[in-house]
Amino acid sequence: MPILKNDTGLYVDLYELTMAQGHFLNGKKDLPAVFDYFFRGIPYGGGFVIFAGLMDLLEMLERYRFDDDDCQYLESIGFHKDFVNYLNNFRHKLTIFAPREGEIVFPNEPVIRVEGNIIEAQIIETVLLNIINFESLIATKAARIRYAANDKIVSDFGLRRAQGLAGIHGSRAAIIGGIDSTSNVFSARLFGLKPTGTQAHSWIQTYGDELEAFRQFAKVFPDKCILLVDTYNTLESGVPNAITVAKEMEARGEKLQAIRLDSGDLAYLSKRARAMLDEAGLQYVKIIASNQLDEYIIRSLDTQDAPIDGFGIGTRLITGNNEGALDGVYKIAMVGEKPLMKISDNIEKMTLPGKKKIYRYINGEGIFNGDAVMLDTEEGVDWMYHPHKPDMFKRMDTMEKEELTQKVMDGGNVIIKKESPYEIAKYVRERMHMLSDEHKRFEFPHIYKVGISKQLMELRSKLIREIKMGGQ
Amino acid sequence: MPILKNDTGLYVDLYELTMAQGHFLNGKKDLPAVFDYFFRGIPYGGGFVIFAGLMDLLEMLERYRFDDDDCQYLESIGFHKDFVNYLNNFRHKLTIFAPREGEIVFPNEPVIRVEGNIIEAQIIETVLLNIINFESLIATKAARIRYAANDKIVSDFGLRRAQGLAGIHGSRAAIIGGIDSTSNVFSARLFGLKPTGTQAHSWIQTYGDELEAFRQFAKVFPDKCILLVDTYNTLESGVPNAITVAKEMEARGEKLQAIRLDSGDLAYLSKRARAMLDEAGLQYVKIIASNQLDEYIIRSLDTQDAPIDGFGIGTRLITGNNEGALDGVYKIAMVGEKPLMKISDNIEKMTLPGKKKIYRYINGEGIFNGDAVMLDTEEGVDWMYHPHKPDMFKRMDTMEKEELTQKVMDGGNVIIKKESPYEIAKYVRERMHMLSDEHKRFEFPHIYKVGISKQLMELRSKLIREIKMGGQ
Repeated sequence: MPILKNDTGLYVDLYELTMAQGHFLNGKKDLPAVFDYFFRGIPYGGGFVIFAGLMDLLEMLERYRFDDDDCQYLESIGFHKDFVNYLNNFRHKLTIFAPREGEIVFPNEPVIRVEGNIIEAQIIETVLLNIINFESLIATKAARIRYAANDKIVSDFGLRRAQGLAGIHGSRAAIIGGIDSTSNVFSARLFGLKPTGTQAHSWIQTYGDELEAFRQFAKVFPDKCILLVDTYNTLESGVPNAITVAKEMEARGEKLQAIRLDSGDLAYLSKRARAMLDEAGLQYVKIIASNQLDEYIIRSLDTQDAPIDGFGIGTRLITGNNEGALDGVYKIAMVGEKPLMKISDNIEKMTLPGKKKIYRYINGEGIFNGDAVMLDTEEGVDWMYHPHKPDMFKRMDTMEKEELTQKVMDGGNVIIKKESPYEIAKYVRERMHMLSDEHKRFEFPHIYKVGISKQLMELRSKLIREIKMGGQ
Repeated sequence: MPILKNDTGLYVDLYELTMAQGHFLNGKKDLPAVFDYFFRGIPYGGGFVIFAGLMDLLEMLERYRFDDDDCQYLESIGFHKDFVNYLNNFRHKLTIFAPREGEIVFPNEPVIRVEGNIIEAQIIETVLLNIINFESLIATKAARIRYAANDKIVSDFGLRRAQGLAGIHGSRAAIIGGIDSTSNVFSARLFGLKPTGTQAHSWIQTYGDELEAFRQFAKVFPDKCILLVDTYNTLESGVPNAITVAKEMEARGEKLQAIRLDSGDLAYLSKRARAMLDEAGLQYVKIIASNQLDEYIIRSLDTQDAPIDGFGIGTRLITGNNEGALDGVYKIAMVGEKPLMKISDNIEKMTLPGKKKIYRYINGEGIFNGDAVMLDTEEGVDWMYHPHKPDMFKRMDTMEKEELTQKVMDGGNVIIKKESPYEIAKYVRERMHMLSDEHKRFEFPHIYKVGISKQLMELRSKLIREIKMGGQ
């Protein structure tokens, strides 16, 4: 479903159009090219990234057009009439390989491979980076929060603090990473997410008297009543009033669902509130907490045995605090039949040349045990080499392997089935179980091994020699 | 102009609709209410915030509707049929007061005041917070970058690293804060921004030979040729090849516009490149730099006298690195004729009750010298009091004053003129000249004084006594 009213090819950086016009005017528009998407660092100092945004990207690419208005605008800012006419009839026929959405991925492996002519493959750079970088950032954050929260309920409360329209895809990515529900009604409808919400302090204040405000809320929402107890004083006023209302509800055959704590020391208040509720025979009333939460605070509350049943998480989830971006890049790997690479004084910034694929290796216990990047013509490796230290290698042929990417777009058409965010989340859960805890911990996680095949290493060495010694 | 295809009332947190239904079913739908928007902290450890997003908010509010599809969805998730029918015919008549877009604003002053019935005033909470928090965050970052860059050219290159669709309003906010142009073509067209761009490494790699790639680019873009010189080796290959092409262009009566550095030590490389260009008689060829820039790196380059003429800034501008959100909140201040406040164990979290306005005081040198928050019935203050320390006060009646906010929406209609982002940026520049450097510096800026009137202080004290002593 289109989200933007003008959902067009103009969602692009100018230089992609500039280069496209250059290739067009230089007669190179049909030159075949291969581009790779990969990232170099893992956000949050973590050990893994959840790959997300794929279906949003593919749907946007299926609709990728330059309509008459777009073309008129491009001509008005100086683009060549012939090139603009070309864009007006532009229908890309891209072929794209990618992992299943929700896959766990790692730095420096070519997560997405895009094949097409140089213009169509180049022109989608920004839309691809924009969607995949952001949704993967948030899905990864959400997976960390889910890891800390174990099986407790977690809701996304982030729309008010989201970076503008980022909230739309952000809530989807949060669900993919393992969040249960969202306050964001727009995205709930658009993506089929479970909407959730309680009440604001303004409700309590509008009714003046807290007890009366609770009663009025219970009256209109008897079957999903959650009461916010910190407007005046949590333990002296909010919880006692909530207990009074819960008892009144019991007398009517109703049940108070939960109370919500939104300020103060959540460990202390939740323990005191739990005791007060239990003493009143309200063991079934749950305690929900919110207020600047993230995976670290949830873990801290857990180690303090805070009796909190669910969390509402806003800012730090929906903005990926405190890493505002995944550093994914989009680099050319082949033009015509020629493998390409970018060399650099910084060895980590060299790219991997040619058309490549990834196999993931799985040990006897069903645990991920290394990803090998190889040329597309290879079918696995016996030994996998460190990307930059050829004397470090690892035996792989004793393990099961699976190809990590599949063809997801063919000739411009999406060829995979659309899954709901909750189906993708289920896949994330399955895959997270196959990743060892050492890669999931928050402090100095063990680095997951991504290596390259001998053939790929040799091709790269050959190209470096050619570039450095042969002019370029 | 609508940006979202489904540009509707569903851009909301569920609890606003839940509370609205509660008020509706409790017969309170016509109860008048006043809400304030304010923030508590300044992002980036800075001394000021640029208020941005106003016109985007107002335009979204003018179109705020629940169409049949929205209503069907709301009924499907359990909303009451009568309430849904009410929403289907819902046309808000909000009156809103706000500063001029681009105004400099400070913590704890009621920047926006919203008046309407309790339902319409509550229901817009999330859309208001979402747009104003984000655009103000980015405009503030941009103003800091502009402050560091002095009068050098700065372009927004952020779309690829923006938080998904956040890039759309992000580029607008960047221009408001003082950025000159953007790579984001979508926003350039939508908001009338200047589009800008150069070339990627893939261009160079596609042509194999760097010199040939430069020649081909110069051929197709003779009048706006910027060459990216770091694909192979900046000083040994990129700059010499650029000089060769610049000389060939000169022979044709053309001029190379600039070279772009995108990696390595920018101070060192820019000095060496400048010397090489100058030695070749190419004093007019400019040097543009990019690669993980922000206001701190720009200032550092400046103190090193790096001869860089322009900057391209991506991630750290468009995501507001490293502060992902402005912490703006939306709190009820009055219901019916009754002023309200939220008390809290944390004194800084108490809200200011009643219908309020702000005067800004300006000293004899034309410099901002304090903002006073007062009741709407007051016309300035002789003395302004610290919000929480009544023994700290400041004489104000010797200074010029101006009312900071104006009515921007009346009965649901926008009543101010729409300005272009560049017009707003001009206002930001003017106002930044009226803010002393102590508030603009990056390290421990001087805190700008925001105080309250005696009447407001007394009203608050009276309400605190009522709440704490009188039940609540």
